[in-house]
Amino acid sequence: MLRTNTCGELNISNCNQNVILSGWVQRSRDLGGMTFIDLRDRYGITQLVFNMETNSELCEKARKLGREYVIQVKGTVAERSNKNLKIPTGEVEIIVNEINILNASKTPPFTIEDNTDGGDELRLKYRYLDLRRNQVKQNMVLRHNLSILIRNYLNDLSFVEIETPYLIKSTPEGARDFVVPSRMNPNEFYALPQSPQTYKQLLMISGFDRYFQIVRCFRDEDLRADRQPEFTQIDCEMSFVEQEDILNLFEGLMTFLFKEAKGVEIKEFPRMTWADAMKYYGSDKPDIRFGMKFVELNDLAQNKGFSVFDDAELVIGICAEGCAQYTRKQIDELVDFVKRPQVGANGLVYIKYNDDGTLKSSVDKFFTPEQLLEIAKKFGAKEGDLMLIMAGKEEKTQNSLGVLRLEMGNRLGLRDSNKYSPLWVVDFPLLEWDEETNRFYAKHHPFTAPKPEDYPKLFTSPKDVRANAYDLVINGVEIGGGSIRIYDKEMQNDMFKVLGISKETVNSQFGYLLNAFEYGAPPHGGIAFGFDRLCSIFGGVESIRDFIAFPKNNNGRDTMSDAPSLIAQDQLDELCLSLIPKQ
Amino acid sequence: MLRTNTCGELNISNCNQNVILSGWVQRSRDLGGMTFIDLRDRYGITQLVFNMETNSELCEKARKLGREYVIQVKGTVAERSNKNLKIPTGEVEIIVNEINILNASKTPPFTIEDNTDGGDELRLKYRYLDLRRNQVKQNMVLRHNLSILIRNYLNDLSFVEIETPYLIKSTPEGARDFVVPSRMNPNEFYALPQSPQTYKQLLMISGFDRYFQIVRCFRDEDLRADRQPEFTQIDCEMSFVEQEDILNLFEGLMTFLFKEAKGVEIKEFPRMTWADAMKYYGSDKPDIRFGMKFVELNDLAQNKGFSVFDDAELVIGICAEGCAQYTRKQIDELVDFVKRPQVGANGLVYIKYNDDGTLKSSVDKFFTPEQLLEIAKKFGAKEGDLMLIMAGKEEKTQNSLGVLRLEMGNRLGLRDSNKYSPLWVVDFPLLEWDEETNRFYAKHHPFTAPKPEDYPKLFTSPKDVRANAYDLVINGVEIGGGSIRIYDKEMQNDMFKVLGISKETVNSQFGYLLNAFEYGAPPHGGIAFGFDRLCSIFGGVESIRDFIAFPKNNNGRDTMSDAPSLIAQDQLDELCLSLIPKQ
Repeated sequence: MLRTNTCGELNISNCNQNVILSGWVQRSRDLGGMTFIDLRDRYGITQLVFNMETNSELCEKARKLGREYVIQVKGTVAERSNKNLKIPTGEVEIIVNEINILNASKTPPFTIEDNTDGGDELRLKYRYLDLRRNQVKQNMVLRHNLSILIRNYLNDLSFVEIETPYLIKSTPEGARDFVVPSRMNPNEFYALPQSPQTYKQLLMISGFDRYFQIVRCFRDEDLRADRQPEFTQIDCEMSFVEQEDILNLFEGLMTFLFKEAKGVEIKEFPRMTWADAMKYYGSDKPDIRFGMKFVELNDLAQNKGFSVFDDAELVIGICAEGCAQYTRKQIDELVDFVKRPQVGANGLVYIKYNDDGTLKSSVDKFFTPEQLLEIAKKFGAKEGDLMLIMAGKEEKTQNSLGVLRLEMGNRLGLRDSNKYSPLWVVDFPLLEWDEETNRFYAKHHPFTAPKPEDYPKLFTSPKDVRANAYDLVINGVEIGGGSIRIYDKEMQNDMFKVLGISKETVNSQFGYLLNAFEYGAPPHGGIAFGFDRLCSIFGGVESIRDFIAFPKNNNGRDTMSDAPSLIAQDQLDELCLSLIPKQ
Repeated sequence: MLRTNTCGELNISNCNQNVILSGWVQRSRDLGGMTFIDLRDRYGITQLVFNMETNSELCEKARKLGREYVIQVKGTVAERSNKNLKIPTGEVEIIVNEINILNASKTPPFTIEDNTDGGDELRLKYRYLDLRRNQVKQNMVLRHNLSILIRNYLNDLSFVEIETPYLIKSTPEGARDFVVPSRMNPNEFYALPQSPQTYKQLLMISGFDRYFQIVRCFRDEDLRADRQPEFTQIDCEMSFVEQEDILNLFEGLMTFLFKEAKGVEIKEFPRMTWADAMKYYGSDKPDIRFGMKFVELNDLAQNKGFSVFDDAELVIGICAEGCAQYTRKQIDELVDFVKRPQVGANGLVYIKYNDDGTLKSSVDKFFTPEQLLEIAKKFGAKEGDLMLIMAGKEEKTQNSLGVLRLEMGNRLGLRDSNKYSPLWVVDFPLLEWDEETNRFYAKHHPFTAPKPEDYPKLFTSPKDVRANAYDLVINGVEIGGGSIRIYDKEMQNDMFKVLGISKETVNSQFGYLLNAFEYGAPPHGGIAFGFDRLCSIFGGVESIRDFIAFPKNNNGRDTMSDAPSLIAQDQLDELCLSLIPKQ
């Protein structure tokens, strides 16, 4: 037996027991005739004590143990004189009578502490050591706990977890697939799933009624910071439901998770149309922990001779409470902020509503004080507030002001990390136009149903067709999205048609799904949550990488094992592949 | 709202309630003025009734509904006059006042019944319809239930489920990898994991102590019947354990699963060395639901002038109780059976212990009745029994007799499908010699630890080194296997050396694991269960395919979606790949 107990469970009630512990040397201290070692395992830390006077040989041996050595000790539990009440084992220590070194350790390349001295790259390369750090370890345990809670909640509601294949058919629609050459079917490829979308729809056609799966998905995209080529989804689908049924059910799941995992009571899940989200927050994932809604100013701001406003499709602004005292420097900072390429604005107009009731703006020469006051009134501004205004093309201006709004929220401390404000964004457009390829793409995916009342407009006014599609947003982060699906072959064909996908392509790529629609497909819909992202929300950390045991870097590499890598020529030969040197 | 209730929940207590049901038309019957429809969903079947006299229009509409139409009905629950007590809803029916056809259905290519008229290929192509059949649906639900039970059991024992990557480094050791070309790292490839072996070991080094994962694994092997290119493993690893700790813990899991999922009490998990399993059962996965152990006859059978025995390395036999009355034809059948290429024996010697006490054998001219009696005594045979004897090279003869033993078990009805006899096979050899490539391979995998007492023989007598490796066998089916792992860099290097893997290869393929061993790797070990196989054992069906929602056929193809398939030239270009036409 390598241990009788873990390092997290012994306490005052175990005094005088003979125990065997195994674990890692977290730190050791020599205090005169005594040596103390903190022995660590996943469950906690237990103090070991060695006495130079009573057993000098053993004490010498203990003094030679380096950090992260793996040892087994035998000894007796004793009450400590100097108690540490911060940890559950802090009232006891082990008077050791035998040490066995199970494995030595080189000095780790960074400290195994909450505040480590290791940089990102180094910690990724030695991920197995980074995972020893409390914070990262706890993230993994949190992830596990959430997955258990989710599975049991859905199981209690008669959802069935069904594993769908990872080696599937490659489809050109959507993001880029990772592909897998087939040796048994030379020159043909499988794809790794971007989501189990068609399979879960087929399961509804099979009558499973309520399906879920916590499942890996793959996208071969150019990686932005915090995007991973493989990620995990909580994928759900239900039959005989309407949008409202789905929203209600998953509000229940989220309320349950917040209560169980964080002790937080979520009271409400407000709903907002996509159109309002764009109009008032300039984002399809508004952070509604704070207000600062957009105010439209076209009527008051245009035709006063200021060409930036006059030529704009849209003039909108936000009111930052209590910021009228911002200095020139602070205002300039904001201007610089919005001009950054990531925000992309040309500039920013401000109006200060001074404490003395006067108004001061960067466009004073075009506006009378009365006109400025009228604008201030529209903002609902009061003395001491700062109004920030942008103008230009509608969508671009909304986006830029949306980013500025979040920045002001940060500056004013309005984005409280202990507050959770979920929001359903609904009524997404069915389609979005892509300037580059000059065609429509499905906003959600090609299987999303248009709203029945908008379906007649599909070919006459495609842009105006709204979908029965919805996103769950928490604190400005999209954590899930879904839709009611098309379950009618003709409607699905119409959808492919408006997307400009040829009949031949449709038949070869999606023929099996369209066929399935002809054998009694029930109305159905679903939702998928980004599990990595959900974990990061619960963990209160921005980066999803911290919640993935072995993440890849921004080049899609695992620097620890050095993957991807070259493969042998005979492997290529078997796969009937040859490499083209990269230009 | 598409339904107020499912088709499985209404009963006599719901009489007179107005309800809405949705589901599929299972069958309909016209009986004079009445039409009855069985409406089906996942939860059950509810009878709908239409009366020609009271509502002829609706009744006409109902009569036009085809099988597998998806409909919504509104109506009132009423007590049936003609009750069906076999189903929970059989005391009631719905007097329908409104039908909405949600979707029509073509006539399915096979009947959606327990005994369908569809063949394997047809059912795979229309898998979404096959999954509507009770048997297949129940298999999926069983699989789900098992996964929930397993996760909660392991969670209660402090196991943490950690997701390991699917895009990993390709390693030439073991079976053939599926590989995934990397677009961002041209000419380099990821592999799909054959198992999360190295990752789970790294997690032990990280201190997670108890890990599990229900995880997909991939092997690009030539598919035998009932092998799938992707399969699911219950993958487990523990630190600070010895073999006995692991066996005990997973006996607990199995006992729990049999109790919860099948109501079966498993009393014991006997252990047998690999050597004994081969010696007495000719198999490393003996079916111990019945005896019929091998008896060695070298001493009694050789040197009697029968060259087949005299020249053999091993003469062994089994005793089939009560089979002495087998006819010439029956014996010939057995001889033909063992001569089939799958069994590969040259022949079979029999000795009948007749009811009258005489002995009759196919080698009477070489053996006296006394000598035959002596052999019969060694078998412990009694009057009425039949002894079947084989001779030849040790391993081959054991294997062949092992197959014959199972065949005799079948013929004698000794393999009761309601009986579950688990068995641990332990002390596997560490290595096995491969004649073809003229080298040793790891019997389990290269990370398996030799028994400490055998380690000194690693280079001097590699064949005799036993491993701390174990398989769990139930009813002759291997459902899991594992080992205590190497956690010492030098021992791991020795292992690679005996496997003939060069230092360069070791460093480039496994360098990160060997490095990790230098930073405080704890003693650890684990086990993995084949989840598809486990489900099939619980489902009482031989084929694992019946427990996979969307399996592939023996050519690795998904005939439903027609994957794998060709991909576009621009996809190949992006991946810097070109195809070589198959010779």
